[in-house]
Amino acid sequence: METKNTKAFGTDAPDADLKPLTIQRRVPTPTDVEIEILYCGVCHSDLHTARNDWGWTTYPVVPGHEIVGRVTSVGGEVTKFKVGDLAGVGCLVDSCRTCSSCRQDLEQYCQNGWVGTYGGNDKYLDQPTHGGYSESITVTEEFVLKIPENLNLAAVAPLLCAGITTWSPLRHWNVGKGSKVAVVGLGGLGHMAIKLAKGLGASVTLFSRTPGKIDEARSLGADEIIISTDDAQMESVAGKFDVIIDTVPYVHDVNPYVATLNINGTLVLVGYLGGLEPILNSVPMILGRKSVAGSLIGGIKETQEMLDFCGEHNIVSEIEMINMQDINHAYERLLKADVKYRFVIDMASLKS
Amino acid sequence: METKNTKAFGTDAPDADLKPLTIQRRVPTPTDVEIEILYCGVCHSDLHTARNDWGWTTYPVVPGHEIVGRVTSVGGEVTKFKVGDLAGVGCLVDSCRTCSSCRQDLEQYCQNGWVGTYGGNDKYLDQPTHGGYSESITVTEEFVLKIPENLNLAAVAPLLCAGITTWSPLRHWNVGKGSKVAVVGLGGLGHMAIKLAKGLGASVTLFSRTPGKIDEARSLGADEIIISTDDAQMESVAGKFDVIIDTVPYVHDVNPYVATLNINGTLVLVGYLGGLEPILNSVPMILGRKSVAGSLIGGIKETQEMLDFCGEHNIVSEIEMINMQDINHAYERLLKADVKYRFVIDMASLKS
Repeated sequence: METKNTKAFGTDAPDADLKPLTIQRRVPTPTDVEIEILYCGVCHSDLHTARNDWGWTTYPVVPGHEIVGRVTSVGGEVTKFKVGDLAGVGCLVDSCRTCSSCRQDLEQYCQNGWVGTYGGNDKYLDQPTHGGYSESITVTEEFVLKIPENLNLAAVAPLLCAGITTWSPLRHWNVGKGSKVAVVGLGGLGHMAIKLAKGLGASVTLFSRTPGKIDEARSLGADEIIISTDDAQMESVAGKFDVIIDTVPYVHDVNPYVATLNINGTLVLVGYLGGLEPILNSVPMILGRKSVAGSLIGGIKETQEMLDFCGEHNIVSEIEMINMQDINHAYERLLKADVKYRFVIDMASLKS
Repeated sequence: METKNTKAFGTDAPDADLKPLTIQRRVPTPTDVEIEILYCGVCHSDLHTARNDWGWTTYPVVPGHEIVGRVTSVGGEVTKFKVGDLAGVGCLVDSCRTCSSCRQDLEQYCQNGWVGTYGGNDKYLDQPTHGGYSESITVTEEFVLKIPENLNLAAVAPLLCAGITTWSPLRHWNVGKGSKVAVVGLGGLGHMAIKLAKGLGASVTLFSRTPGKIDEARSLGADEIIISTDDAQMESVAGKFDVIIDTVPYVHDVNPYVATLNINGTLVLVGYLGGLEPILNSVPMILGRKSVAGSLIGGIKETQEMLDFCGEHNIVSEIEMINMQDINHAYERLLKADVKYRFVIDMASLKS
């Protein structure tokens, strides 16, 4: 298959800094869209993958799955995009397209394994896929998203992962006008959960460990901030919420949040992959028909709906722009949660 | 308030056998129904309460909340029942009737505390309520159930707790034709879960630890039995079930069952009140949008629906009849799971 040299930024080893690399991208097939990447968001998963925190990284790795840019070439069978269009790519660049999940537009739960934007199994080149820290990407049309023209393009990038990861559970658990939603954690995911839940018409409460975030959270749209270390404040919201979006990415006690769920309420974990410690107590779950659930990103159709919704409601991420060369420093700041609320790489910097 | 002496069976202390007692029942008020108890099922909760396993028992206690009998007297304002009708009483004899749960026919999740059939707060006599191990019970009309005439009355009794406890989650999680349901544990609750799920049109799998129950489970309606200690059998149902009703009443590892949930599937705990050990792993929950939930008995309207459904589909419990005087021995057998599948007390024996 014909390929072309493409500038990128990645790493060869878990303990090495990211650095310039040259990767191969396929020349568009008849169903492909080639996108010049203008901005790429920086997700925690990028860092975890670069450093092999989950143990499944193959090197070299080029992270990045919050990609926006402009179409530079389309294959002969492409119908939804033309050269010059804005386009986006999120966490998925393909799936089996035939299993029951895929047929329900739930590619993120593909039973045969979806293809991640980086570190996935590239069906075309028989190598790991490479992500958005690069000058361009070529993706099959069905996995390319349309981007509303009216939004700040750089601030759209994080919608492709942080946005859809919180949007999907809000929609699946039927959040709308009158819903009472709480968000645990105010980072990349948490700040999007607040904006999207608010956009859907819910009243939104932020759980935070420190009073320092009250003003910020209000400015993002939160109606209420509950300091989770304050027992009296926690008691004041006992039994209140229909849905809790828990974005905390490390092990933490979910039992105090379960106590704040209303009858039939659901706490959805979107950030933490691991064992629930301290142990989850079934008593309040049984006494209130409460659920603890998980949710993973979102499907392509749902991602498009989210982007269209954001266009209509003028919702974007809060971002801090960086140059590609700043990525290693940005990772260090990410580890300290020192970003409001998402780093986005200006990919023009890769050319310099 | 006028009361009358009523024969009962109960205990004064956690370490004492149950024995004959005389309790006070109120003379029916205008909204009350008085029922001569003909049969009363024996629930695990009866034993736990008699022995104060949960630490909240007040003595003397008269257990029993799977009550069927015949109406002997009605208050002047009662409209749904007349003397001679069959009638049933389950786990609830009252609730606040005003909170949002009660207004949604979810009295089992009453926000102000429902009144349990025994050990509850009797609003009329300012004492603990007393249950069905007695010759009669007086209950406000709204909490009395109509019993189909076509069923074996003794075998109807366990529907009032074991039946509704499994029916409610089956209905709440939309089990119907084509659903794939699994049941964990084949006891009083488990055997009802099989029958009810089958009645609703689902295909039903029983998880059992031993091969000894295969024939029994099939005769109850199970389509498939998976031996949960056999890794190959467990692997064969990975990702299969829409709903799992977990009736196991002691601590156990739910992670292997979560692995058998389909995308969007829910495991519902109905038997075990306590901490989930070994710890629940969020990874498969996130990767498959799976939920772990709890569910408690059911509301009055839903209980009536279940009884009507059982009448139409000829569904009753499998029972072993005992005399009231056998209750202490029955408790010992219950502890060894030595009953197929529910003891029911022939209350005529209390008179002898």
